[in-house]
Amino acid sequence: MTRFEPNLRIPGPTALPPSVREAGGRQMVNHRGEEFKALTKRVEAAMKPFFGTEHDVILLTCAGTGGLEAAVVNTLSPGDPVLAVTMGAFGDRFAKVAEVYGAAVTRLEVEWGRAPEPAAVGAAAAAIAGLRAVLLTHNETSTGVTSDVEALAAAVRAAAPEALVLVDGISALGAVPFEMDRWGCDLVVTGSQKAWMSAPGMAFVAVGPRAWAAADAARMPRFYLDLKRHRESQASGESPWTPAVAVLFQVDEGIRLMQAEGAGVHARHAACAAMTRAGLRALGFQLLADDAVASRTVTAAWIPDGLDWKAFNGGLKRRGLVVAGGQGKLKGRIFRLGHLGSVTTDDIIAAISAIEAQALEAGLAVRPGAGVAAAQAALVAAEAR
Amino acid sequence: MTRFEPNLRIPGPTALPPSVREAGGRQMVNHRGEEFKALTKRVEAAMKPFFGTEHDVILLTCAGTGGLEAAVVNTLSPGDPVLAVTMGAFGDRFAKVAEVYGAAVTRLEVEWGRAPEPAAVGAAAAAIAGLRAVLLTHNETSTGVTSDVEALAAAVRAAAPEALVLVDGISALGAVPFEMDRWGCDLVVTGSQKAWMSAPGMAFVAVGPRAWAAADAARMPRFYLDLKRHRESQASGESPWTPAVAVLFQVDEGIRLMQAEGAGVHARHAACAAMTRAGLRALGFQLLADDAVASRTVTAAWIPDGLDWKAFNGGLKRRGLVVAGGQGKLKGRIFRLGHLGSVTTDDIIAAISAIEAQALEAGLAVRPGAGVAAAQAALVAAEAR
Repeated sequence: MTRFEPNLRIPGPTALPPSVREAGGRQMVNHRGEEFKALTKRVEAAMKPFFGTEHDVILLTCAGTGGLEAAVVNTLSPGDPVLAVTMGAFGDRFAKVAEVYGAAVTRLEVEWGRAPEPAAVGAAAAAIAGLRAVLLTHNETSTGVTSDVEALAAAVRAAAPEALVLVDGISALGAVPFEMDRWGCDLVVTGSQKAWMSAPGMAFVAVGPRAWAAADAARMPRFYLDLKRHRESQASGESPWTPAVAVLFQVDEGIRLMQAEGAGVHARHAACAAMTRAGLRALGFQLLADDAVASRTVTAAWIPDGLDWKAFNGGLKRRGLVVAGGQGKLKGRIFRLGHLGSVTTDDIIAAISAIEAQALEAGLAVRPGAGVAAAQAALVAAEAR
Repeated sequence: MTRFEPNLRIPGPTALPPSVREAGGRQMVNHRGEEFKALTKRVEAAMKPFFGTEHDVILLTCAGTGGLEAAVVNTLSPGDPVLAVTMGAFGDRFAKVAEVYGAAVTRLEVEWGRAPEPAAVGAAAAAIAGLRAVLLTHNETSTGVTSDVEALAAAVRAAAPEALVLVDGISALGAVPFEMDRWGCDLVVTGSQKAWMSAPGMAFVAVGPRAWAAADAARMPRFYLDLKRHRESQASGESPWTPAVAVLFQVDEGIRLMQAEGAGVHARHAACAAMTRAGLRALGFQLLADDAVASRTVTAAWIPDGLDWKAFNGGLKRRGLVVAGGQGKLKGRIFRLGHLGSVTTDDIIAAISAIEAQALEAGLAVRPGAGVAAAQAALVAAEAR
């Protein structure tokens, strides 16, 4: 049936709440004036609890991938031994950045759909002489798997105490609990278009004292993404280059909404994830990730054998539902539903309803109502917790 | 007197027209969906005439400085001899980027407020064995000087035919005529928050065939700002990393307004520049740049000896006028008025009115009405042309 705005269920950019849209349409201000300086400082301060850090959060004007590059080039030198723990397309990308800039990268590749084992990561770290850094993916957007960063970071610290722990937290930070300082992470990256309910265009990089110390020695070349330059400017509420003013207006408003919701942010993401998984399973879809490692922000399901995905997805679009396909080696084999940022449980019920209707139209063996009933049951269970 | 929205006369970000603000507040869409692919292709095609190129225009999610870095790292290798022609803070920045990435940079420094002489640039280029590239600033935002890129590029081509001509066109491109292909420029950079009347967050890099050939051989490391990756994605209307969706919505609308205005865009910028210069001069301010090299997008004036600039600028702010200060070695010595993007002749009359009123309040020797009368005369003269 007709919808007047799509149900945007891709894992970012996410739909913007009305007040965030308003913020994006505001008039420009002087990015070196007092009003914008106050905003910059407010956003940095407000982000720290979501990272679980008391250290700096640097605001960069770039996509999340730029944040990953900043993580690498500001802390490492060419030739540095690096362990890249990968479990999907974005872990591969992080590793690739380090390789491009000349790090000596050893990959610990985990099967896509699974999460790395802390013991295996510790053993891999211990086996690399002079290990300088370990690259971790917190939430692998391409597979819908969340790794146990707390346990992984602990394993790295035990095996290679001097190695930095650099974390791609782009697609879950803010939506799930994170404790950068307590877990011993040295640098964590996120992006405006994920949990922060804003348009894409800014990355946020939390930098701990060990990463700053590494930046003093790091010899990979950097200019635009130089974190120390940004720290220097941010001390007075500025950025070294012109920042994405409108995106920061939005992030400021998105964080205000998140602060007002409080712990409800995490509960909402947990409920939406549980509803998505229950609904898809009840419709007969096999999920890529086991429950134990399932992401709370994105769910990947296998495309059933014999299903014409292009036609099926066209039907979803006509029903107003926009989902994401697979990436890398899973392209054409899975589809993904994003449930992060402004997502509501109503959005998920509507998404499952559309998939269910389309599944019936496609002739899949589905009992009418099974998907939404299962999603609803998951909602009720989540609310009872 | 009270204004309900400041007269934002900094040289970017510039004030947004109403329809551009609306575009910035739009709901997100799938950045890999058909609607956004069509928008990406539309923006690229529409930008080409403003660059004066038939070649590629690459869309990057970053500030203009990221565009300068892309220019360097995609075309050069460490050790490459480079001539940086500098005439202000942004020329210095372009040179610094090349140095950071290991180019062997020779600087031809022109006094701030003046423009480089083609003969001097040609001689400097001829004197460097194996010269790989010349870095030019088209419009030096820190001084309000526009260089004669056509003549400079011709001088470089004559002196060192193999050297690439890489142009920082950030703060004037779109506002003034530019002929990249005809003038023999190989790569030209601009930014969304300048003539394009949009929020900051995107840089646009036009790349000619010689620059693409150089990219095949260039060994400076790059990932986030890799132009070839972007070209590959843009072929299907995509970007390799998540683009600044809302900024591109705005640029699309800004270009639509520019297309509707046609040649009026250039005439409007010329009139606003002439009015600004005439008005400031009539108020007794000395301008940094001679008329022959004066920018059409930003005007710099010396702060008169003995004037308490902080108090004066505070008065301007109370009158709703926001101007920019000096940068680098001109910090505290000049102030700058931006007149680009959505600027109207009314904005300039209002700016001169505010400066005139504040000058009278500050006890400067000003005849009431002299500033606005001179600006008005410049407007009438411009309209008569």
